[in-house]
Formats: sequence, structure tokens, C-alpha cells
Amino acid sequence: VGPQGRRTKRARKGLKPCSLREAVVSVSELGLGYNSDETLLFRYCSGRCFTHRRNYDVSLEHMKRTGALGLGRQDRARHSPCCRPTTYEDDVSFLDNNNKYYTIHQVSARECGCV
Amino acid sequence: VGPQGRRTKRARKGLKPCSLREAVVSVSELGLGYNSDETLLFRYCSGRCFTHRRNYDVSLEHMKRTGALGLGRQDRARHSPCCRPTTYEDDVSFLDNNNKYYTIHQVSARECGCV
Repeated sequence: VGPQGRRTKRARKGLKPCSLREAVVSVSELGLGYNSDETLLFRYCSGRCFTHRRNYDVSLEHMKRTGALGLGRQDRARHSPCCRPTTYEDDVSFLDNNNKYYTIHQVSARECGCV
Repeated sequence: VGPQGRRTKRARKGLKPCSLREAVVSVSELGLGYNSDETLLFRYCSGRCFTHRRNYDVSLEHMKRTGALGLGRQDRARHSPCCRPTTYEDDVSFLDNNNKYYTIHQVSARECGCV
């Protein structure tokens, strides 16, 4: 299998469209610095947005490749929509392992979109 | 200069925040398949969104690293906002080099945001 074949195979793996995924995790696992064994449903956005490309994306990709924008290779202007949260869940409240009460904002996604 | 030094230097180059950039290009240069020497002002979005990160992004990054979501390394869920157009310019109309009239949609960005 040549490099082209391997690339095709790798690309196929990620073919699921942009959507909301979920996992049950403890508050400690969120990595926000709280020590709590309480669990929550963490929702996040993942997947491909290739079918949501507009003329903007096609043109930007083309002009980055041809150098028409006069940019160096390091320009990171994105020429493909991102799968990202468009709204977030309400606040999450919990008790930490010292029985102290906390509320945290915008932790979990509610809806995803190709933006 | 070691690899660490080079990396820091490269990272600094891209420190500009997400904003609208522009370039005058011909319609042909857009790469949409039209052959026309008419020019337009192409606006696009580029730059960093690091300061726009929410709890969602910090947690997602942490859990991808620690494996708390049970994901493989190929999961591409983004843990940083994207600098993308939030609105586009009105339609662009032009004559191609055979004097045929065309209108194309959503080619140029009007506003950018960290989404």
C-alpha cells in the first residue's frame, strides 16, 4: 500500500458527520481543578463538516494553495467549517469532596453545528 | 537554537487575534471555475481564538489527553474556538471573459468570530 492508499484509509475512519457525543465523567475528571466524585453527563461536538463548505471555503483553500493571497505557509485561515457547540448546557452545580458548593458555566455542549 | 526555541519563535508569528483580512484578487483566482479578469475584494477570517476558550474547551482538552472520554487518538473534537466567518458578503456578480453574466454566493466574509 502506497502513501495514497494509507491516506484514504485514514480519512475514512473519521467519516461521521458533526454531532453531539456524550460520556459520563466525574467532576474531577473535567480537569478544572475541582476535587469531586460527583458525576455528570459531558456532551461534546465531534465529526466532519465537509458537506457544509461554501464558495468561501473552496476559494480560500484554492488561494492558499496557489499563493494568490500573498500569504506564507504559516497562515492558518481555516477553509473548512468547524464542528463546534452552538449552545451550551445550563450551569452545573456540585459539592466537592469537602462538601463545598460550586457552580460552573458552559461546560457541556447542548447543540453542535458546522460553523 | 534547539527545537524548543524554534517552536516558540514560530508560535509567536501567529499571535494576531481573529480578524477580517483582505486581498484584491481576480475572479479567475478564486478557483471556482470561472474565467474572468474582473477583480474583487476577497475578505477572509484568520487569527487566534485562544482567549475565547470556555470551560468546555479546557475540559475537553484535558479529557482527550487523559483518556477520560474513552476516545482513540484520532478523535478530532476541537478544544479551541475557530476563527470563522459569522456573516458573508452579498452576492458577487461579474462578466466572464466571454461576456457571460454570473452571480456567486457567499464568497467573501463580512464578519469574523471565534466560534
